[in-house]
Amino acid sequence: MQFNKVTDGIVQELKAILGEGNVLIEEEKLDMYSRDEVSDKLWEKMPEVVVKPENVEQVSEIVKLANRELLPITPRGGGTGLAAGAVPLSGGLVLSLEKMNKILEVDTENLFMVVEPGVTTGEVQKTAKAQGLLYAGDPCSADSSFIGGNVATNAGGNKAVKYGVTSRHIYGLEVVMPNGDIVTFGGKNVKDVTGYDFVHLMVGSEGTLGVVTKIWLKLMPLPKYVADLLVPFADMQSAIQVVPKIMTAGIIPTCLEFMDSLSIKAAEMYLNKKLPYSDAGAYIICEIDGTSETQVQDDYETIGKVCQDNGALEVFVADNMSTQERIWKSRKCYAEAIRMLSPVYCMEDVVVPVSNIPKALEAIERIAKKYECKIPSCGHAGDGNIHATVLREDRDDHEWHDLKDKVLEELYEEVYQLGGNLSGEHGIGAKRAGAMDKHMTEAQLNVLRSIKKALDPKGIMNPGKVLV
Amino acid sequence: MQFNKVTDGIVQELKAILGEGNVLIEEEKLDMYSRDEVSDKLWEKMPEVVVKPENVEQVSEIVKLANRELLPITPRGGGTGLAAGAVPLSGGLVLSLEKMNKILEVDTENLFMVVEPGVTTGEVQKTAKAQGLLYAGDPCSADSSFIGGNVATNAGGNKAVKYGVTSRHIYGLEVVMPNGDIVTFGGKNVKDVTGYDFVHLMVGSEGTLGVVTKIWLKLMPLPKYVADLLVPFADMQSAIQVVPKIMTAGIIPTCLEFMDSLSIKAAEMYLNKKLPYSDAGAYIICEIDGTSETQVQDDYETIGKVCQDNGALEVFVADNMSTQERIWKSRKCYAEAIRMLSPVYCMEDVVVPVSNIPKALEAIERIAKKYECKIPSCGHAGDGNIHATVLREDRDDHEWHDLKDKVLEELYEEVYQLGGNLSGEHGIGAKRAGAMDKHMTEAQLNVLRSIKKALDPKGIMNPGKVLV
Repeated sequence: MQFNKVTDGIVQELKAILGEGNVLIEEEKLDMYSRDEVSDKLWEKMPEVVVKPENVEQVSEIVKLANRELLPITPRGGGTGLAAGAVPLSGGLVLSLEKMNKILEVDTENLFMVVEPGVTTGEVQKTAKAQGLLYAGDPCSADSSFIGGNVATNAGGNKAVKYGVTSRHIYGLEVVMPNGDIVTFGGKNVKDVTGYDFVHLMVGSEGTLGVVTKIWLKLMPLPKYVADLLVPFADMQSAIQVVPKIMTAGIIPTCLEFMDSLSIKAAEMYLNKKLPYSDAGAYIICEIDGTSETQVQDDYETIGKVCQDNGALEVFVADNMSTQERIWKSRKCYAEAIRMLSPVYCMEDVVVPVSNIPKALEAIERIAKKYECKIPSCGHAGDGNIHATVLREDRDDHEWHDLKDKVLEELYEEVYQLGGNLSGEHGIGAKRAGAMDKHMTEAQLNVLRSIKKALDPKGIMNPGKVLV
Repeated sequence: MQFNKVTDGIVQELKAILGEGNVLIEEEKLDMYSRDEVSDKLWEKMPEVVVKPENVEQVSEIVKLANRELLPITPRGGGTGLAAGAVPLSGGLVLSLEKMNKILEVDTENLFMVVEPGVTTGEVQKTAKAQGLLYAGDPCSADSSFIGGNVATNAGGNKAVKYGVTSRHIYGLEVVMPNGDIVTFGGKNVKDVTGYDFVHLMVGSEGTLGVVTKIWLKLMPLPKYVADLLVPFADMQSAIQVVPKIMTAGIIPTCLEFMDSLSIKAAEMYLNKKLPYSDAGAYIICEIDGTSETQVQDDYETIGKVCQDNGALEVFVADNMSTQERIWKSRKCYAEAIRMLSPVYCMEDVVVPVSNIPKALEAIERIAKKYECKIPSCGHAGDGNIHATVLREDRDDHEWHDLKDKVLEELYEEVYQLGGNLSGEHGIGAKRAGAMDKHMTEAQLNVLRSIKKALDPKGIMNPGKVLV
């Protein structure tokens, strides 16, 4: 796709729409919009201009202008993405939603929150909690990621085992289509089959089909009782073998996470705090919640017993907030902690059927051994979603790119053999678009491409992402 | 759209693909494929030919032939639809999935069932239960509806308050696209953001975007304890006022249903059995489930107290299977029972935000009074989903069509005023396609039409349904 360049005239037009202060062209101001959290120069690119609309009408005007002038638009949330989805690889406009950051309504009767896309996920969680309600989306980046970005990537997170990924909490969207039309689908109806499910086509489409400008989020009653289990095991394989056993014990845990020994060590270094049993080969972290204390207790005892019968070194129960927070900090700091081991890395996000996690982790170990590299892993065991991170350490550019290419090729191949797929929650972005192209059939790609072409015939919305 | 007719040559070609026995052209055999459960001659039409493929390759061959010859295809499940979605209103082929009725796999490790579309929903439920698992989709028509039809309409049902509608249980689909391509999206990965969410675009698309030929259904642990409450109230308004109060009491009930007095009477007549408090103005039926007996007990006591504090005449607790079945029979027989009041009727399926159910029911009462007709109502109170059924009784054709048109126009208008929508679970089909066209904006319709056109450029898949 050949796009035009942003001219001075266009910048003037954008300033007329948005006001001086909401149009950035100075290099030092553009810099932070040239990357996301993929730590690799390969996936950085300066935008020509950054625009910061404050309302849906302005978004619509910007999109109309870009459509008319054939300029690429890259919508951007908190910039915490891990697939280069928000990087303007074709230049053009970065459309940052940072100023559309209002919580418009908390409806405690219907259990809905209506928000603009620039609200952080953490703010959504806190606002719900203050009303005795739960927003169950919980990506590890919640403090900095925008809810709009969660929608764009269909973010997963820690509570997905019981409560599902972001898509499950999204009941309505206002969207600016690539032609500038403003449409709203869904809202506060908890069931609705009036027409196609455009809402859930948008969720996870990574800004390639339009710009989300308003979001109806479903809330639920805040569980009255919560308990967390931290369960160390002697090695990764015995830890991960227990996962399918927990998942078939008749209880749906809220969270079911794992960390390998490298991840535990990295967390300990990053937090600068001794973690219990940090010499263990692996952790399983499991959360249970419910409306009754006895039920939560019964449930975690059942799960604790499954762990003990299957080689757990110990079962720590955390049933108060401060101990729970300590446990979760070690898991949630994974991305930051990994930087302590190597500032440059390649974090993958593969997903396999839960029963195949042990085999997937065996494969990762085998690949690490074969290429003599480190691949610390942790992730959402209950969802089969593994964050495997290849470390660059002190390799030079050539060695690093060579290593990464080989490891990813082999990893994806193994994952497909196990009935898995490329990404569980981080998305395809630009980083995995080539791999998707390679692993999908032509017929599958035709379906996806025809949807893209129908909704964005000029291809201006986030080009080069998802589909190459 | 101008379609061609099915010629003798085409019938011969179909027989070559499917074998003699799977191609029907005799009028007496075609008759049962000319309608669904919309009891109105207006929505009946004989197909030119009925085909019964036995595998996906045959479906693909049929679709390729129809695509080449410009013949309309109407996919058909159990024929229990309530929106004329499976009626071949443009003639052509009815593609019945009745012979693709195998349960292909019950995966008790990953908690998945893989099925063909012609399995009844009841069979899916029973098969899961036999393994100690739950398939949580539960439309009232479960005994006769096909799971493929549930997917096509995104069927709701009774357990949607806690477990969601059909879409939530669908993780993968094999689909024959309108050009005959066979594609599979999703599978046993419980999280997957590899490309657009085509699976959930297909769910609820009512056979207008392709033919579903294989379905990956998520199962969950069967709740160990279940209790049902039957709560009679003196009148509809006091019953329905309690619904938002239950929904904000900190517990997510599995089911939360209501029946008005006419529906109770009809059920009593149909079942030929005295129901408790059947002179009450309305019933609320509420189900609670969980892994612990105390929790279920605590939960139903909390809800029972909310009811008692808000005008309940009585709170019956059913915690054994036979009493539970008796309660549910009275609710599930609604569609059949209504026939006792009037063999011809018009069953609507509007949905509003839960807090607006009282206003919606007031509006229905007002409309019934204004047009001097009966509109018995029941439905999924916890979802804001109301089945309001206009009875023909002894009106002549002209009076009936006039009444129906006026009532529907006014009902839809009221529902939109309340932030509601046309259909919560029955779908748009042909019956509501005109209303959808009227109530959606041009921009919304453009989005939906462009998706349809992209995937089915010749418009052969179930023409006249969803979009006019």
